[in-house]
Amino acid sequence: MDIVRVVGELVCTRRVPGLGSASLRVVRSAQGVVSVATDPVGAPVGRWVFATTGSAARLAMPDKTCMTDLTICGIIDHWDEDVPAATTEHRATGVGSGASKG
Amino acid sequence: MDIVRVVGELVCTRRVPGLGSASLRVVRSAQGVVSVATDPVGAPVGRWVFATTGSAARLAMPDKTCMTDLTICGIIDHWDEDVPAATTEHRATGVGSGASKG
Amino acid sequence: MDIVRVVGELVCTRRVPGLGSASLRVVRSAQGVVSVATDPVGAPVGRWVFATTGSAARLAMPDKTCMTDLTICGIIDHWDEDVPAATTEHRATGVGSGASKG
Amino acid sequence: MDIVRVVGELVCTRRVPGLGSASLRVVRSAQGVVSVATDPVGAPVGRWVFATTGSAARLAMPDKTCMTDLTICGIIDHWDEDVPAATTEHRATGVGSGASKG
Amino acid sequence: MDIVRVVGELVCTRRVPGLGSASLRVVRSAQGVVSVATDPVGAPVGRWVFATTGSAARLAMPDKTCMTDLTICGIIDHWDEDVPAATTEHRATGVGSGASKG
Repeated sequence: MDIVRVVGELVCTRRVPGLGSASLRVVRSAQGVVSVATDPVGAPVGRWVFATTGSAARLAMPDKTCMTDLTICGIIDHWDEDVPAATTEHRATGVGSGASKG
Repeated sequence: MDIVRVVGELVCTRRVPGLGSASLRVVRSAQGVVSVATDPVGAPVGRWVFATTGSAARLAMPDKTCMTDLTICGIIDHWDEDVPAATTEHRATGVGSGASKG
Repeated sequence: MDIVRVVGELVCTRRVPGLGSASLRVVRSAQGVVSVATDPVGAPVGRWVFATTGSAARLAMPDKTCMTDLTICGIIDHWDEDVPAATTEHRATGVGSGASKG
Repeated sequence: MDIVRVVGELVCTRRVPGLGSASLRVVRSAQGVVSVATDPVGAPVGRWVFATTGSAARLAMPDKTCMTDLTICGIIDHWDEDVPAATTEHRATGVGSGASKG
Repeated sequence: MDIVRVVGELVCTRRVPGLGSASLRVVRSAQGVVSVATDPVGAPVGRWVFATTGSAARLAMPDKTCMTDLTICGIIDHWDEDVPAATTEHRATGVGSGASKG
């Protein structure tokens, strides 16, 4: 699922009937790409959320026939990263060695 | 759903029968990528719209068997952004702290 | 649908049976990415075409069980653009103001 | 399938019911993009894994109705590369010549 | 379908049962992105191949329930390109003029 931030509410007066009354949120990725997501969770503006794409986006809606391709699945509280960002050692010689359990 | 701008009408004399008589619009993303979308809404040239992708694009058409992968879902009036664009603080130490409700 | 240019015919002696006798074309996007598309239209080399992706690519084939993910849907004659490329004014304050009909 | 590294456990107090009790992992690609994946394998933090996307992500879960679009399929031990990274000779004149078997 | 090069065999001791005994290959695109593909063709290391994505990847496998999202469809012998790479003339004024047949 994609990690995006809720940046606003979308206002549009004309839309296809298949979206029903779904709440539409403008979200922005860490890379700066802005998209529109349906929101069954009620995510506040400013919060980071994760959203599912493709056919799974329909299944995540109360109305499974909603023609969305991006649905907010949950509000992120936080996560801990123990792995540094500069990790390109997996190339050429493989990603690791030894046992399959780290 | 993707946010794109309608930049023109597509003219093509030869196309597969499965597109029926669907109106075809040329759209451009904020990143400059140009695509072709089916348009059941009647979006005027120059307007920003949002469009759904994948199998949802078929469901958004009056004819559900139309073989599109990008359908305009609505015309955007505007949105308000209260969140600044430079928001990379979600990395490494998580996206926030404390309660799940902002 | 993606806008790509037909750059050649693909020659491959070994392929999965599920592609049947579909004509395979090498296509290149405006960004320079080269892909393989099935072609039920008979698009000449050098022409710009639009192609549908994902499950719609199968539906656009005469044989709906063809395991393609990119099918040429039509040959583009031309389109007119009345909208300049530098259009980033949709950010932060919304994409427009006033009535929903442009 | 995508090759990503497990960087942490996701903590979120509010999420859609359709995810059930699936374990949610934060993963990062070699390009630095951070996503959320469901994990039926039990992949330890720091390990490189491969994950399937789209509708296949649901099929890879014990509960096939889980609304994920990214599921960890296996933990990578290593791979050997005999092919140098600078390989652009496939362009313009084709990718190779002669028999189909290398 | 994507054009990628087989760079190695993937070794992983723990993987989801839904992949069965499918052969897993590490492939790399011309842009340098490394992925994992299932291989029903038996593509040798070093060869350029084309691979189908999404739900079509499952259909291309002998076992249609295999939870792959990338399957090698054929080994590329070569292709001829008669079209120069610098082809951006399709923008703004359309991709061509005159008859639909080139």
